[in-house]
Amino acid sequence: MNDPANLIITGQYLLTMDRGQTVIEEGGLAIAGDTIQAVGRAEDLVARFPNAQVMAEPHGLIMPGLVNVHTHAAMSLFRGLADDLPLMQWLQDYIFPLEATLTGDVVYQGTLLSLCEMIRSGTTSFCDMYLFAGDVARAAAEAGMRAWVGEVLYDFPSPNYGGLENGFAYVRELLGRYRHHPLVSITVDPHAVYTCSPELLTRLGALARDEGALYVIHLAENEEEVRTCRERYGRSPVDHLESLGLLHPQVVADHCVMLTPTEIALLAERGVKVAHCPESNLKLASGIAPVVDLLAAGIAVGLGTDGSASNNDVDLFGEMNTAAKIHKVDRMDPTVMSAATTLHAATLGGARVLGAEHLIGSLEPGKKADCIVLDLDQPHLTPMYNPISHLVYAARGADVIHSVINGQVVMRDRRLLTLDEAAILARAAEIGAGFRRGRNGG
Amino acid sequence: MNDPANLIITGQYLLTMDRGQTVIEEGGLAIAGDTIQAVGRAEDLVARFPNAQVMAEPHGLIMPGLVNVHTHAAMSLFRGLADDLPLMQWLQDYIFPLEATLTGDVVYQGTLLSLCEMIRSGTTSFCDMYLFAGDVARAAAEAGMRAWVGEVLYDFPSPNYGGLENGFAYVRELLGRYRHHPLVSITVDPHAVYTCSPELLTRLGALARDEGALYVIHLAENEEEVRTCRERYGRSPVDHLESLGLLHPQVVADHCVMLTPTEIALLAERGVKVAHCPESNLKLASGIAPVVDLLAAGIAVGLGTDGSASNNDVDLFGEMNTAAKIHKVDRMDPTVMSAATTLHAATLGGARVLGAEHLIGSLEPGKKADCIVLDLDQPHLTPMYNPISHLVYAARGADVIHSVINGQVVMRDRRLLTLDEAAILARAAEIGAGFRRGRNGG
Repeated sequence: MNDPANLIITGQYLLTMDRGQTVIEEGGLAIAGDTIQAVGRAEDLVARFPNAQVMAEPHGLIMPGLVNVHTHAAMSLFRGLADDLPLMQWLQDYIFPLEATLTGDVVYQGTLLSLCEMIRSGTTSFCDMYLFAGDVARAAAEAGMRAWVGEVLYDFPSPNYGGLENGFAYVRELLGRYRHHPLVSITVDPHAVYTCSPELLTRLGALARDEGALYVIHLAENEEEVRTCRERYGRSPVDHLESLGLLHPQVVADHCVMLTPTEIALLAERGVKVAHCPESNLKLASGIAPVVDLLAAGIAVGLGTDGSASNNDVDLFGEMNTAAKIHKVDRMDPTVMSAATTLHAATLGGARVLGAEHLIGSLEPGKKADCIVLDLDQPHLTPMYNPISHLVYAARGADVIHSVINGQVVMRDRRLLTLDEAAILARAAEIGAGFRRGRNGG
Repeated sequence: MNDPANLIITGQYLLTMDRGQTVIEEGGLAIAGDTIQAVGRAEDLVARFPNAQVMAEPHGLIMPGLVNVHTHAAMSLFRGLADDLPLMQWLQDYIFPLEATLTGDVVYQGTLLSLCEMIRSGTTSFCDMYLFAGDVARAAAEAGMRAWVGEVLYDFPSPNYGGLENGFAYVRELLGRYRHHPLVSITVDPHAVYTCSPELLTRLGALARDEGALYVIHLAENEEEVRTCRERYGRSPVDHLESLGLLHPQVVADHCVMLTPTEIALLAERGVKVAHCPESNLKLASGIAPVVDLLAAGIAVGLGTDGSASNNDVDLFGEMNTAAKIHKVDRMDPTVMSAATTLHAATLGGARVLGAEHLIGSLEPGKKADCIVLDLDQPHLTPMYNPISHLVYAARGADVIHSVINGQVVMRDRRLLTLDEAAILARAAEIGAGFRRGRNGG
């Protein structure tokens, strides 16, 4: 904490997103290596650290990088391939056949593509569940992105690891390889209660506990999941996990659309965290998660985009805009899910979901230096009355001009510095052309 | 139609948005003056019109400019001033007191600000209802924007014209002044059934009929409007207009959230047009308009942003994204409000709402040359399987690089050519600072 700062970023506003949601006009932050050294008035920081490089953005708004708590990054390659279909037709006719052909290299390329989009739209951390997680982790590490990465496990053979014993070996190897990595953490990811036997859920629970890893699972996403679970086990998905002793503070429950008040109280009591993915839930007609009640119960809620095939993007600014609006009409009350509540979910709330509230999610001394700068000098952000309102209701991912992750500048003036974007786009276009030819039998 | 073209725009894709939603790869359009001369393959157009200037955008998608069928452009100045409040508190404590202080110059400046944002996000036509409509029309004409502009009338004294007789004189003068204008049309705008007496509604109806003007009115926006109307007249808003003989094909009904099946059938029978504003309806917790039923009944539906104070933007790409998703969850059916249906509402559907289907909304020879070009060479638009899916579910206003209205290039490479954007932003910031001082009593 006593290192001299090597980089100072200053702007018209600095949003700390600390517990008081402090906003500093003409503010800045000083970074030493990977860590925030100080936050305060720009002129004070410049005087205190005279040897630091200064990135001054007079029309800039500095804020914590956004935290995407649920996605399948490589599904960027399937975006727009098929939309507006019934869920099972979409999965069985389009997604599953393509996923059966996936390779580690394709997942790596698709993840890089999503990383370009995430950085460009202000995300600095993401939690990913997919196949070939080792290739997802490799892409994230190369991009300098903070990531929680899990290999999805289920009862069927996987296009990646084949049978389950191989799957466990694969996950254990990943856990070992990334144990001390500065950016990448490995999670334990059972797909869902309808695709994983109670034995698999339990065995993965033990692995997560032994490793101190997050236990990430799709939970209560839609009516069909609840019906299937009731038919098979006589219990709802939440009650099913409870009966297996698998509700606890390391659990990240994705979606949580279909919950009863009793289940919400149980999730709160067990300290389960929730990933809210409103745009995917709308597009797949899953429903609207009872986030107002989850927050009232004290449950940590973060925002996720889900995969690009069901959103169709990984832009958390759009997700905030939707989240803030959809609950108002769901409750017929314009005061719920305020801009401040929503922005918290996309920053510090997301950090809490990932067990990283001490590391990221706000700009405070001692935390990791993950921040973004938006350009306020634009028609849709003028005049400025309330930065938090503008960020949720008016700003766009494209307004982000700089991004810093773990003290490293990964985007400057909308140029990506850690990724070869032209090469990534060219390779993604080739892969897409291949998918199309495959479908056309060519 | 036999003039040689003076401008050819070519791109990777040209979306005509004609009735077949034809997409031409390596396509383009040729423009002669204000009119589309030809649409087709790029190489054919260049060969046919060798003397035309060519704007070639190898990664570009060319499509009709978007049509915003309901906004209050100058409310850009109130964006973010107050959010997340009950409707009446928001109106009475914030919006009405500020509107009472408006001047023609302030409305002019606020409209210019919205015009910058509209052009930057792909809108080439808008229908505006506000105070000081003469200043709105002046701003639109200067920007080279296609506009339908109405002065809002109600039973109370107006900050613009004072008493009603002056209001009628003001509207008549505007109708005369813009009768032959190439871009601006004047509409007749009673505010709503709860703010206009039956006499005022009827008198304005006669004026609209005599002038062949659109009759634009907020209708059935929320529960309170329906309740108030029932208490006062014993009828719903739709039945009230019907009883006055005021439902006909020149009517543009804004919002239409609270409709019964019988009312939908009546609106269809009378040929009434509907402006659907999903984001405003969500943010104000008004409800979700039954657009799936409106379209099934054959009613023309366009997309509107409403004012920036209740959205908080005038970006129709965001509005399309929301429109396509919200109805899926409202009906619990992922197949409704497809990307193609949504894009139609934002283009040709909007043109039909404004009685301008013969002029704009699709790229076809003989129509006015209103088009935009998006840059597809971006991570969130790669790979490309289906341009219409990408436009609705993944594209952003910021992806628009060029805009042409009535044959005039109004934005090129994201630089506005008809507006002094820096001066407009500076003036808007000053006005905003004044509003803030006023509220603080300073």
